[in-house]
Amino acid sequence: MRINRKRLEESMEALGRIGATAKGGLNRVALTDDDRRGRDLLVGWMREAGLTVTVDQMGNIFGQRAGGDDLPPVLMGSHADSVPTGGKYDGQLGVLCALETIRCLNDQEVRTRHPVAMAIFTNEEGARFQPAMIGSGVMAGKIPLEDAYNARDRDGLRLGDELERIGYLGSELCIPRPLRAYLELHIEQGPILEEEHLSVGVVEGIVAIAWSRLTLTGVQDHAGPTPMRIRHDALVAAAEIVRGVREIPRKIGGDMVATVGRLDVAPNIPNAIPGRVTMSVDLRAPDEHHITRGLGLLDRLVKDAARAEGVTYELEHYWRVPRTHFDLEVVDTIEAAVRSLGCSHRRILSGAGHDAQYMAVICPTGMIFVPSRGGRSHCEEEFTPMDDIEHGANTLLLAAARLASTA
Amino acid sequence: MRINRKRLEESMEALGRIGATAKGGLNRVALTDDDRRGRDLLVGWMREAGLTVTVDQMGNIFGQRAGGDDLPPVLMGSHADSVPTGGKYDGQLGVLCALETIRCLNDQEVRTRHPVAMAIFTNEEGARFQPAMIGSGVMAGKIPLEDAYNARDRDGLRLGDELERIGYLGSELCIPRPLRAYLELHIEQGPILEEEHLSVGVVEGIVAIAWSRLTLTGVQDHAGPTPMRIRHDALVAAAEIVRGVREIPRKIGGDMVATVGRLDVAPNIPNAIPGRVTMSVDLRAPDEHHITRGLGLLDRLVKDAARAEGVTYELEHYWRVPRTHFDLEVVDTIEAAVRSLGCSHRRILSGAGHDAQYMAVICPTGMIFVPSRGGRSHCEEEFTPMDDIEHGANTLLLAAARLASTA
Repeated sequence: MRINRKRLEESMEALGRIGATAKGGLNRVALTDDDRRGRDLLVGWMREAGLTVTVDQMGNIFGQRAGGDDLPPVLMGSHADSVPTGGKYDGQLGVLCALETIRCLNDQEVRTRHPVAMAIFTNEEGARFQPAMIGSGVMAGKIPLEDAYNARDRDGLRLGDELERIGYLGSELCIPRPLRAYLELHIEQGPILEEEHLSVGVVEGIVAIAWSRLTLTGVQDHAGPTPMRIRHDALVAAAEIVRGVREIPRKIGGDMVATVGRLDVAPNIPNAIPGRVTMSVDLRAPDEHHITRGLGLLDRLVKDAARAEGVTYELEHYWRVPRTHFDLEVVDTIEAAVRSLGCSHRRILSGAGHDAQYMAVICPTGMIFVPSRGGRSHCEEEFTPMDDIEHGANTLLLAAARLASTA
Repeated sequence: MRINRKRLEESMEALGRIGATAKGGLNRVALTDDDRRGRDLLVGWMREAGLTVTVDQMGNIFGQRAGGDDLPPVLMGSHADSVPTGGKYDGQLGVLCALETIRCLNDQEVRTRHPVAMAIFTNEEGARFQPAMIGSGVMAGKIPLEDAYNARDRDGLRLGDELERIGYLGSELCIPRPLRAYLELHIEQGPILEEEHLSVGVVEGIVAIAWSRLTLTGVQDHAGPTPMRIRHDALVAAAEIVRGVREIPRKIGGDMVATVGRLDVAPNIPNAIPGRVTMSVDLRAPDEHHITRGLGLLDRLVKDAARAEGVTYELEHYWRVPRTHFDLEVVDTIEAAVRSLGCSHRRILSGAGHDAQYMAVICPTGMIFVPSRGGRSHCEEEFTPMDDIEHGANTLLLAAARLASTA
């Protein structure tokens, strides 16, 4: 039993046209009109494949194929939203490989003991509403539903209102449900598989992640007549912190990474001394303790930079996800599947957060990685060769079929 | 002959309500609906004062009171636009003191040899359209009209289109005209008058100004799985440059100031390594040569920071205004006026650019400063005591009347 490569490729092309950018990337940010159009297309395909489609209170979409017995389903899934100038592989590839798996089971008229289902999670990227992975986070009971509804984008729009606006505020409760397993195929988003010329990564877990937000408040003033001696420039303090954050992984070692990805200046005009800067700090490490030490260094760095410039600050460590260890049976099943296909592979750790992280809280979970060219993602140049995608999708198919027939 | 303090105060309050912010500041950015409402109110008052009102191709508004002879007018003016979170004094105070001067000449039925006129210049702040002082800049022949029309705001809207939209695309040619003198009252926007407990500054000139814009292009990538060793982060390079710009005045000495006021990150989300940063650099100094040396330091700084992070850049020194020396006769006339009033005063240099800078190119020009509390401006806390405003306005009145009766 193998997936239909041509059909998968056609589905990738069709879905990738919704929100396509001029440079071949994707701009399909969560709960925009394009997100709605993408969801509508997917739901149509899911119904054509005979799935029972439901939408929960967070707009997460589920489609289930009946099993032989009344047992918890094997769920496959990912997300369909992108970052603003993202690529055509991150998220939608996992959703389409899940759909292809189900289409394939239909083609072969395979009867599984457990139902086999697919999921499309809301706002995985966190580009528009923070935190990221908010749909699976609520489902796992890790984010209160009301907090998620009240998340606001830069224009002050509420997530709850936007869900309703695009017609995906469902009635099904967004709570943990009995599941045989959760499987997610995703691009690696790092350089390792490509560097080692491998097709498939058998993901053992996800690094620990901490997100902080910082607001620096200085004294907004005119850039001309204000002498240097009386300035309290929020951006000068922010610059010191950006440089300091870059140094944190070097000081701590291991495979830690640290990033300031977002920085907003107010009033942000050439001739005013910045009165306020808000910025994000993203710390990740395989070792939980490294995160704790990194946050300590960040606290001190912010305090020192603010004092040196005479600005005040608010620093909030608002989101933290511990190191995720995937389920041994699921990881072994994935490895057995890729081995039976004869594909090159290795075990690997994910540096990016995924919905699988929250799903691991409520059921046995595993992930399948395919390579990212140049290790690049969250950009329009994102690319994975079709041969590798085919190997990854077949791994998903065999692992899902196996899990749906055992235990 | 003295101005009517109560009437001036009432006009300040009425105009200050248009675009007022909750915190007592002003948000009346150029060519917005509120700018139009402010212009409409002023034009109404100018007509009530019996002025002949005309609007030129740049939306600059002129109102003229006839003189006894057919001679070039004494023009007073300033601007009515503000920065996004600005105050109620910067710009509109000069326009209203000019209007009050004319109302006062009317009250007293003063007949001047030269006509006395007032002007409201378009987009002085440069908050929405760059460069700043674009209305007077075109009038002085220093900015081509077509370039000004094609200036675009952040949303891509053209200045020319926005002028038309708000109904202030006039037919009068925006070219130099014969003028007896140009006088502008403005807040100091610096700490000197307040620190020295003085009411009026007799402005001798304006510092030299240079504006640069810089775009840094790195490699946008996912903040999680991208090892530190392969990163090319545009924001890390930008941070190095922000810190370096802060050091430029210390290296050069004199009264130089240097500011990064605007900085935009793309894609600007917590979990993507910034692929692109655009930023502004504003250098000012009383000594022209210091600007040249400052730009040289900036060139080297940008080159080094970009190389260290492995990012590319485009650095453009796109706007430069030489040191402005005001007209000796006009400056002396202002000083004689303030002395005759018995007000405390001193000669002073402006650290901020003003429309007077361009007007100085086409006619004898001078400025009158009143104090800024805490030296602060371009912020909602901007404030000048009414006693000082009264002294400044009377200085303007006497100087204008004097210039309109001589030569």
